[in-house]
Amino acid sequence: MRPPLGFRFGAVSAHIRKDGRIDLALAVSDDDAVAAGVFTRNLVRAAPVVVAEERLRSGVARAVLVNAGCANACTGDAGLRATLASTESVAQALGVASESVLPASTGVIGAVLPSEKIASAAEALVGSLSVDGVDGFSRAILTTDRGPKLARAELPGGASVLGVAKGAGMIHPDLGPPQATMLAFLFTDAQVDPKALAGVLDRACQVTFNAASVDGDTSTNDSVIALASGKSGASVSEAELEAAFTRVAGELARAMVADGEGANHVCELVIEGLGSDADARTVARTVATSLLVKTALFGKDANWGRLLAAAGRAGVKFDPNVAEISVGPVAIVRGGVAVGGEAEREAAKILAGASYTITLRLGSGPGRARYLTSDLGHSYVDVNAGYRS
Amino acid sequence: MRPPLGFRFGAVSAHIRKDGRIDLALAVSDDDAVAAGVFTRNLVRAAPVVVAEERLRSGVARAVLVNAGCANACTGDAGLRATLASTESVAQALGVASESVLPASTGVIGAVLPSEKIASAAEALVGSLSVDGVDGFSRAILTTDRGPKLARAELPGGASVLGVAKGAGMIHPDLGPPQATMLAFLFTDAQVDPKALAGVLDRACQVTFNAASVDGDTSTNDSVIALASGKSGASVSEAELEAAFTRVAGELARAMVADGEGANHVCELVIEGLGSDADARTVARTVATSLLVKTALFGKDANWGRLLAAAGRAGVKFDPNVAEISVGPVAIVRGGVAVGGEAEREAAKILAGASYTITLRLGSGPGRARYLTSDLGHSYVDVNAGYRS
Repeated sequence: MRPPLGFRFGAVSAHIRKDGRIDLALAVSDDDAVAAGVFTRNLVRAAPVVVAEERLRSGVARAVLVNAGCANACTGDAGLRATLASTESVAQALGVASESVLPASTGVIGAVLPSEKIASAAEALVGSLSVDGVDGFSRAILTTDRGPKLARAELPGGASVLGVAKGAGMIHPDLGPPQATMLAFLFTDAQVDPKALAGVLDRACQVTFNAASVDGDTSTNDSVIALASGKSGASVSEAELEAAFTRVAGELARAMVADGEGANHVCELVIEGLGSDADARTVARTVATSLLVKTALFGKDANWGRLLAAAGRAGVKFDPNVAEISVGPVAIVRGGVAVGGEAEREAAKILAGASYTITLRLGSGPGRARYLTSDLGHSYVDVNAGYRS
Repeated sequence: MRPPLGFRFGAVSAHIRKDGRIDLALAVSDDDAVAAGVFTRNLVRAAPVVVAEERLRSGVARAVLVNAGCANACTGDAGLRATLASTESVAQALGVASESVLPASTGVIGAVLPSEKIASAAEALVGSLSVDGVDGFSRAILTTDRGPKLARAELPGGASVLGVAKGAGMIHPDLGPPQATMLAFLFTDAQVDPKALAGVLDRACQVTFNAASVDGDTSTNDSVIALASGKSGASVSEAELEAAFTRVAGELARAMVADGEGANHVCELVIEGLGSDADARTVARTVATSLLVKTALFGKDANWGRLLAAAGRAGVKFDPNVAEISVGPVAIVRGGVAVGGEAEREAAKILAGASYTITLRLGSGPGRARYLTSDLGHSYVDVNAGYRS
């Protein structure tokens, strides 16, 4: 996958992960890049989130330094010092100011980042940089993911957007302006100013990462960072860039939900007919995070009662007696009651697939929302009951 | 277990459940009883909830008719007619007005209650009534429960309170005044007026059933109904009755969480040090329903990072850097950072137990809340992925 012009990527094993897999990734812009980020709105914010957000105030950056294996969250001053030290050692090896290196971490909460391991690996990491290094970068940032997540989109004038993400659990990002352990990095060689980049990134995140849930838990480390090198020489409109960012972020969000810990199905929930998009989003979020809904999806069961009951507790007014529910094209509820056993058997066939849409039409209002969610089964329990052990 | 004076209880199989277990229960007061109820705040409310709430406006009732196997929720007018018909047939067999019979249902959502089966069983049900029938009543109302749930408390003057409940999944009641598929029935022979009974019941529910969660899902059928026969002749104060109701409802709530689908551990979360009790309750609810917290409890893992991260997304302001977390008496976090590996190993021993307390002290404010939650493991998935099949 050809990266946008002006970026190089590298990855090594710094032995942060116990299994020895590559766990330290670096993306570098040849010159100062226009930069923006959105970060978790969780009150508990990991040290790399604090540092990256602060450094992004300048609107420019040279590099993104990412490690897996240790989230460096809930680690106090020691954690902050470790993040500063790790970006310092990599900045020295790169010959750039440490303030221009944006950190991101993912892994276990509560352990301090082993900055001495990163210092030891800094030269090798910089030595691994290459325009063809995206594959290594995309693999080094993974934790419980089944595989790397990449997406790209073309822009007018020969520019492009490349997105790289990780995330399979603790996925229910709540990203705000300026504020996302999913990690996602968007690289573009389009020309864009810092304010436009920040606006485009925020709007793209709201309808993609912020409308996706694996388990309803928001991480201390969720981060989305965008770097724009301008090296294509192409000047694109904000609308064009937003469309490309939204497409790339949308693909990455779907890849994360599809890779949801133990997930076999991706369900796109569509909520329609409410008073406002905000109301529809509230209902969508409640249904998308309902355990009873997610276990029914695991069971491939067209259990519309659970869908409707979850919608009913969202705190949004609607008349259950006009509710319509469809699985794919198959209507299973009309006027708030079941269509019948045959429809449910047809629906169950669709629910056996890897990806489908469930639509709840809860009235005749204009409010509409989409949300991606996954089923929840035994593997989720296995992954999360044993993660630290 | 001796029931309060003035009540008889019965149960039969009406063949609503496919497995032939007893599934129809009746509790009758010898004369008009003072009555009050709290019901689910879910917008989607089953027919029996609608009918029982309406009938409780009179403040008096003679009987409670409960079935398992069919929730009669999301069943429209047909469901409403079925509830009316079933109470009518039992009222006739009892020789009382149908308006004095309060219905409650639990089971699958979306199927209309088979009122003809209840009509056929009405005479046998009334024939089964006895002052010793509490055991049958308590078993006939069960669905996925591992066993019956009973609690009692003594009142001054020889009066008493008896509580009977069911509920193991879809447990996160949201009961309001006047408004719970947990079902709970409180019987007392104390003398109390309707307004006092309604107030006492509501206050007792808020600190018990409404502070307990198995899976975060609120049912369409959650109902708590209290009947006071006055037959003890004892006139008790509201404070005395509230203390007794709170104790009985608290025991029933704990029994429900302990019987949470697939649960092995009951965790009492204590949240302290916030600005207000309401803030503490919001944090407690968020931590109690976090999937990552609940799977960590299943794994007996003192994963305090997940506890703190869940608290951090509750939307309540606190300083994570002063957070203290204890498992039982063992402090595992002080000043927002880990105490150490030894403390966590001690904590893990406590987490292997059937019941324990986890305390999060998040500041120095006066706000405090308690919440009961369970671990979440494979059996939850088994029970809920296959419930309708």
